[in-house]
Amino acid sequence: MKNELYKEKLTEYLEGFVSERRIGRVKEVLDKRTNHITIVLEDVYQSHNFSAVLRSADIFGIQTVNFIENRNKYKVSEDVSMGSTQWLSINRYQNKENNTKQCLQDLKAKGYKIVATSLHKNSISLNQLTLEKPIALVFGTELTGITKDVEDVADEFVTLPMFGFTESFNISVCAALCMYELRNKLENSDISFGLTEAEKKDIYIEWLKASIKKHDLVIKEFDLKYSENPIK
Amino acid sequence: MKNELYKEKLTEYLEGFVSERRIGRVKEVLDKRTNHITIVLEDVYQSHNFSAVLRSADIFGIQTVNFIENRNKYKVSEDVSMGSTQWLSINRYQNKENNTKQCLQDLKAKGYKIVATSLHKNSISLNQLTLEKPIALVFGTELTGITKDVEDVADEFVTLPMFGFTESFNISVCAALCMYELRNKLENSDISFGLTEAEKKDIYIEWLKASIKKHDLVIKEFDLKYSENPIK
Repeated sequence: MKNELYKEKLTEYLEGFVSERRIGRVKEVLDKRTNHITIVLEDVYQSHNFSAVLRSADIFGIQTVNFIENRNKYKVSEDVSMGSTQWLSINRYQNKENNTKQCLQDLKAKGYKIVATSLHKNSISLNQLTLEKPIALVFGTELTGITKDVEDVADEFVTLPMFGFTESFNISVCAALCMYELRNKLENSDISFGLTEAEKKDIYIEWLKASIKKHDLVIKEFDLKYSENPIK
Repeated sequence: MKNELYKEKLTEYLEGFVSERRIGRVKEVLDKRTNHITIVLEDVYQSHNFSAVLRSADIFGIQTVNFIENRNKYKVSEDVSMGSTQWLSINRYQNKENNTKQCLQDLKAKGYKIVATSLHKNSISLNQLTLEKPIALVFGTELTGITKDVEDVADEFVTLPMFGFTESFNISVCAALCMYELRNKLENSDISFGLTEAEKKDIYIEWLKASIKKHDLVIKEFDLKYSENPIK
């Protein structure tokens, strides 16, 4: 339990460097965070697209975004993401033999239902999707969509209502519409979709750090004090 | 009525150059078009943003997009818009003394309620917006939002639900969420939001033209025949 105590003390210490108003805001946002929905981007390659997805994820309170980087490395453009990366948990899959398989396998092991947006023959409408199980929403690359690796393991395919000639949404638009719809659904459901207490504690520390200039120095100082007076 | 007859004959003539399947598709999309909602973009300057808005407008069946070009000229990027401009009616305001005022004045004269997305003190939530009157949704420039000219004449300010640190959506995301929500609302309402028969006829001709390669030559040929055998 030493680790838990360390975190607790560190949290208290860091709080000393952040205004009450800011702490209030951080706690307020934290209470609305969810991992019940998670986003997977498979080789989305246009910077303005995945940066806009990150921004939307933050806005809709979706904590975790998974980057699959088979062919493209993600480089966030800050003017589009508006600094949202510092408030998100990002998992990167970039060095595995098959990043897509590894990512989806990990998510399935955590209990996620893999959902891809696609005009697949067995697609259901997004608003028909049930949310009892956590949902991993997978979005594929701009031109060719999801790979066969995703198709093979997806549990469900969803579509959005479309009324025009164009038959696919811009990827950042598509992701935002899905998040909007599913967040609405969660809000109006009995599902307890908030973060666990353990998740909250860890993210809270990260967000306090993000709220402190030169937090590296602050933590170094804390560690020094802590090693002098270890908590038993 | 010569003009009406001319259009009727031209329509018949053009239909001869388009496959039945295509005509079916064109009519299907036309039946879902609306001008009950219209989009206004005020100096949105990033090409990928307004191109994505055009693409979404087509998808949600919103026929008309109004460009206000005070400082920025619109240059659509085709890889983002996916050719959607050819299916939309675009009004450009670029040479008036005050393009914003002129555009909004024109829309008001046509009976539109001017609605801006904004964290204005009197904002209502988007889903509280009533749709009995036609709605002109105004989106401002990426960095500074709508101008005071819009604020002064807007009839209503709306916001979308937000749960994160980031306090504004990417413009193309914001526009898509509004269109999605309002289209849903229209679909579930008793409002007759389709185009008028006159609008449909004109747009149908445009869409037939867009479906014919070298339609300029085809129309030239028709005009020649027509002048030899004028309809009385």
